Amino acid sequence: MSSSRCYLDYNATTPLSDAARDALVSALDVYGNPSSVHQEGRAAKALLEKARRQVAHRLHTEPDHVVFTSGATEAAMTLLTPDYKMGRSDVHFSKVYIGATEHPCIGKGGRFGKDQQVIIGVDENGIVNLDELQSKLSNHNKSEGLPMVAIQAANGETGVIQPVRKIADIVKQAGGVLVVDIVQYIGKLPVDVASFGGDFFIVAAHKIGGPKGIGAFIATGSALMPQALILGGGQEKGFRSGTESIPLIAAFGAAMEQKPTTQDLDHSKALQMRLEHGLHQLSNNLVIFGEKSPRLPNTTYFAVDGLKAETLQIGFDLAGFAVSAGSACSSGKVKQSGVLSAMGCHVPDGAIRVSTGKHTSLKNIDDFLSAFEKIIRNSKN
Amino acid sequence: MSSSRCYLDYNATTPLSDAARDALVSALDVYGNPSSVHQEGRAAKALLEKARRQVAHRLHTEPDHVVFTSGATEAAMTLLTPDYKMGRSDVHFSKVYIGATEHPCIGKGGRFGKDQQVIIGVDENGIVNLDELQSKLSNHNKSEGLPMVAIQAANGETGVIQPVRKIADIVKQAGGVLVVDIVQYIGKLPVDVASFGGDFFIVAAHKIGGPKGIGAFIATGSALMPQALILGGGQEKGFRSGTESIPLIAAFGAAMEQKPTTQDLDHSKALQMRLEHGLHQLSNNLVIFGEKSPRLPNTTYFAVDGLKAETLQIGFDLAGFAVSAGSACSSGKVKQSGVLSAMGCHVPDGAIRVSTGKHTSLKNIDDFLSAFEKIIRNSKN
Repeated sequence: MSSSRCYLDYNATTPLSDAARDALVSALDVYGNPSSVHQEGRAAKALLEKARRQVAHRLHTEPDHVVFTSGATEAAMTLLTPDYKMGRSDVHFSKVYIGATEHPCIGKGGRFGKDQQVIIGVDENGIVNLDELQSKLSNHNKSEGLPMVAIQAANGETGVIQPVRKIADIVKQAGGVLVVDIVQYIGKLPVDVASFGGDFFIVAAHKIGGPKGIGAFIATGSALMPQALILGGGQEKGFRSGTESIPLIAAFGAAMEQKPTTQDLDHSKALQMRLEHGLHQLSNNLVIFGEKSPRLPNTTYFAVDGLKAETLQIGFDLAGFAVSAGSACSSGKVKQSGVLSAMGCHVPDGAIRVSTGKHTSLKNIDDFLSAFEKIIRNSKN
Repeated sequence: MSSSRCYLDYNATTPLSDAARDALVSALDVYGNPSSVHQEGRAAKALLEKARRQVAHRLHTEPDHVVFTSGATEAAMTLLTPDYKMGRSDVHFSKVYIGATEHPCIGKGGRFGKDQQVIIGVDENGIVNLDELQSKLSNHNKSEGLPMVAIQAANGETGVIQPVRKIADIVKQAGGVLVVDIVQYIGKLPVDVASFGGDFFIVAAHKIGGPKGIGAFIATGSALMPQALILGGGQEKGFRSGTESIPLIAAFGAAMEQKPTTQDLDHSKALQMRLEHGLHQLSNNLVIFGEKSPRLPNTTYFAVDGLKAETLQIGFDLAGFAVSAGSACSSGKVKQSGVLSAMGCHVPDGAIRVSTGKHTSLKNIDDFLSAFEKIIRNSKN
């Protein structure tokens, strides 16, 4: 990272951690195809299985339950399908119930038809409406197929954390299956898939210090599995074909070994408190979205009345700060955030997301606040 | 590569070229999300677009026509679908006609139903039966949808080269669309997508000195495009969502800049001649598959009557040579090759594929032949 730049967009993507980088670069020399039986192939296979154990270990589950994909989006697309197998039996899901603030990779409903998708609203704090979920699931017609629910553990824009355990209980009672997107959550807070709640989990390496282009879905068991999205040579036990990207997978494994510590968490919270206190002090017309909800300790999403997010973002960029105006996952265009709309917020000028990470210091936050002060002062002239 | 090892399995995967490795490692520092509008995001975007130009340039087409995927398998799965769009209009394909010796990523028919897949046989030399193709296409019922044809330019096991130009003419006359898998072909022989024949092309980086986990499909126009396989944030103009793996893409671009030269081709042919002459000299019971067909200059696929391929392969591996018994793309299991079955060859003991590459020398071939001589001598004791 350039020392003159301050990167505050960790929710969009994280710089590669040293451990992940080392694992990736070493694996560049292990060039065999892991499906080949010769020595070169076996060396590649060994790295693949090591990484699988690392991912499983971090989530307190079995390596057998980990399926590598090219990222979280592909993982979501694989899991969100009406067609599952339980051993040799077909299992059919007739509807998918999706949180209103999901990432587009969930929000677009995967392989479910538009008429099979049901949105579950969130309240003004960004929390999934549990009564609505319960009521919609109780109206679900099981003779047509089972219900699937897909919810994020934490929102990438607001950082709002969903009550996954409670949601899981509701889904279980309704005889459904719960897919949990832990992409934004896992780098900041601990996850044990056995007790977290949910049946399937989605992870992306590049949000936790790993490289872009690799992710996984993780099942809590190995009986029920989705019909493969990508057919071919039968890699990943047939659940995901295509030659495995060993360097990315090795780096993903290494990144998964680096759990957030209590110290990381405390540091993150301290940054957030300082930032949000400072923002409120500098402007009376400022709102922090999801402020009353449990939130990721690294995320602050705010808007200033009458000030365009685009203006703010460009101002910050010129001052050396990389922040996001909404989510970075689209095409770089700034538009009214779907997440904020779902929360009932009317924010036509857009909002700014600050997301901190491992390398962020209190001084970075103070400098950011100074830059913010200058930008709002200039905007009044 | 260890100096005590001789890698002769380039069709399974290639070692990373120096240029690809350099591009990959440099790109590890460009950590921004290419969808972010700040400086870090723009730097990532610049690498993405540079690589797109490199891929397009190699194939003599426009950057706009290149869609990056996680590899050839995903590219095939994306292209082989009944549902296309021409601008805002839907275009429907009712059947896909598939060569009998296709790689499983094509051979499994992608998103077409089993009843929508028609196999086109090959002759004993591995060449697609053009009369059969023509006759089946003339029987195609266009009122149900258009015909799609999917054919490899060269087979990964035998190296047999298909008459793509002739196939393209037949497909064009039938009003269909031709998908050409150039994965094995492109690293060995020149391709100009405008004149090669075909409407869509599939490429994998790791077969041409690039990394595993990245590939592309290339359209000859930009009007007709397949319905996306992976939905989400709308990257790659909506044709393939998911955060782009910039390091892999940069390396892919660098690998695409390294065209095979006339010298490479001559060297490759010289190795093949020496190898095949030597094999025939050492055994009277040896057959080289597709020997009478135009073949890739780097590929030799042979069987020795009464000698198990598995025994040969293990013998070679112990002697320091990495070769393949059939294709490496499955789960490492050696079984009767579907490619050989399609050619009408009964090879219950399996076959050995030698595929040479950039680093293979004439001495490697002589050493390989000596090892072969020892293995067959021992097998007779």
